[in-house]
Amino acid sequence: MNIAIIAPGRDVTVWKETIEKEAKGVNIQVYPEISSPENVDMVMLWQHPKGILKKFTNLKFISSMGAGVDHILNDPYLPEGIPVARIKDEKLTFSMTNYVVMGVLNFHRRLSHFQENQKKKRWDMKNPEIDVKVGVMGVGALGGDVLDKLSYMGFDVYGYGNSPKEDFPFTYFHGKEGLKSFLDKVNVIACLLPLTEQTEGFLNSDFFEDCQKGTYLINVARGKHLVEEDLIKALKKGHISGTLLDVYSKEPLPKDHPFWDNEKITMTPHIASVTNPLAAAPKIAENCRRWMEGKPLRNVVNQEKGY
Amino acid sequence: MNIAIIAPGRDVTVWKETIEKEAKGVNIQVYPEISSPENVDMVMLWQHPKGILKKFTNLKFISSMGAGVDHILNDPYLPEGIPVARIKDEKLTFSMTNYVVMGVLNFHRRLSHFQENQKKKRWDMKNPEIDVKVGVMGVGALGGDVLDKLSYMGFDVYGYGNSPKEDFPFTYFHGKEGLKSFLDKVNVIACLLPLTEQTEGFLNSDFFEDCQKGTYLINVARGKHLVEEDLIKALKKGHISGTLLDVYSKEPLPKDHPFWDNEKITMTPHIASVTNPLAAAPKIAENCRRWMEGKPLRNVVNQEKGY
Repeated sequence: MNIAIIAPGRDVTVWKETIEKEAKGVNIQVYPEISSPENVDMVMLWQHPKGILKKFTNLKFISSMGAGVDHILNDPYLPEGIPVARIKDEKLTFSMTNYVVMGVLNFHRRLSHFQENQKKKRWDMKNPEIDVKVGVMGVGALGGDVLDKLSYMGFDVYGYGNSPKEDFPFTYFHGKEGLKSFLDKVNVIACLLPLTEQTEGFLNSDFFEDCQKGTYLINVARGKHLVEEDLIKALKKGHISGTLLDVYSKEPLPKDHPFWDNEKITMTPHIASVTNPLAAAPKIAENCRRWMEGKPLRNVVNQEKGY
Repeated sequence: MNIAIIAPGRDVTVWKETIEKEAKGVNIQVYPEISSPENVDMVMLWQHPKGILKKFTNLKFISSMGAGVDHILNDPYLPEGIPVARIKDEKLTFSMTNYVVMGVLNFHRRLSHFQENQKKKRWDMKNPEIDVKVGVMGVGALGGDVLDKLSYMGFDVYGYGNSPKEDFPFTYFHGKEGLKSFLDKVNVIACLLPLTEQTEGFLNSDFFEDCQKGTYLINVARGKHLVEEDLIKALKKGHISGTLLDVYSKEPLPKDHPFWDNEKITMTPHIASVTNPLAAAPKIAENCRRWMEGKPLRNVVNQEKGY
């Protein structure tokens, strides 16, 4: 089985060695040194150069090197009918959930308020916590885990997604018609939606105006879910009281971007959930073994839905 | 049944009204306007003036207006042989646990590091999280809940307490002889110990030197557990890398206290878990009803152990 890793600028040594060790019979080349792309059976992708897939004319499947697949599905040259698999691993879920819970708790316990008071040497015990109701947008493996953990901690939680769900263990709203009811329930929103045509720019002025005044926003999905200038307006107007952001429309975030200086924005540099090659590469190796043995692949995304 | 509320400087209207409503047949006086203290059956105390209990010569029991009882047990004029009850309520536990989990997560996800980088407009994705092992000192109703919630979130947790425990659901160490083994396991410590003669000043230089280098400390118990100048030294030396404090040896913390300005200290003004009269007063009312009906009281502390 011939594999090509295309992840420009990334050190892929661990990925290569792990997969070679765990899937006997693979032959791995690393971009840009790829001879005979027409003989490659599988490409592993992370922010690959657009157009490059045209050369790979015999692909059997494609593996994303992360939990997201938008960087693959957005490629107009993506060959049709080829399965795309993504990484699902417990460590990714653990990190993502803990990041979101951190954001919820810091809002709940008014951390930034107390940090301000510390600077001013002000002892003020009034209103020590905000009663929070947490809404999670996107209720797949990651969003579902966030709901589960927060619910176990005693919070009221609400889920929101694109399609109806049966037997979902939490109160759930879906589609355009469910959005307003969802937003009426919650005062913290965590966005874990997949990035698709429908969800791009979803967090915009219309959305913010439908939020309860003072809602806190956490975005750990993709920068393009958010219309950044609309967020700045919503923070100014108070529709949104504060936000924890991990993703941006352009990364690294340019130095002159207004987010850096905005006191209502807490920022991290796309680290909410970082794929660990030691955990993720074995998942790809497993799919290689399964393909060589003629078994169905794991974690293949629905390309129509986009996740 | 005659009751006196002694909580100088505190508005006790809700306490009084709730107990009058929920325990028929009580007569409540509020300090300092207490006539005939010798006829009072029960006092409700919060930071009462020392010595005042001498006047109450016919007490049947004493109620703390919070989860802690150290303010009562430390009173040299505490009459002997009178039961002391404390408040246990789910909301107290919810708040305490969420506060501690917030501290754990902010250390785990390096929040202060990313806040510093934001100020400097620095995009640095390296080392996005610290692998944490959490130790909880004091494993009663509150500490036990912290362990349970953190364990459910996927963290390795360890408990520490004064006495041996059977069938404890988490790895547990106890006593002086167990302390070093406990400290060797963990790099985040949350102190929820009761304040007793044995635990006063427990968090001192000897303790910090036995911690793993870079351990993070959360104190939500009492200020007097901590030798404050020893903490400042330990932060300087790096034995302790940072700390979240909610309690202090003197409260409100004086303006000239060195904690305010220390960048490694995050401070809140004793609000980790604030007794809500609406939740707590019914617990005292219940004990009043039980006493009037000759039933055993709830949540009576062991005065020898101090909790």
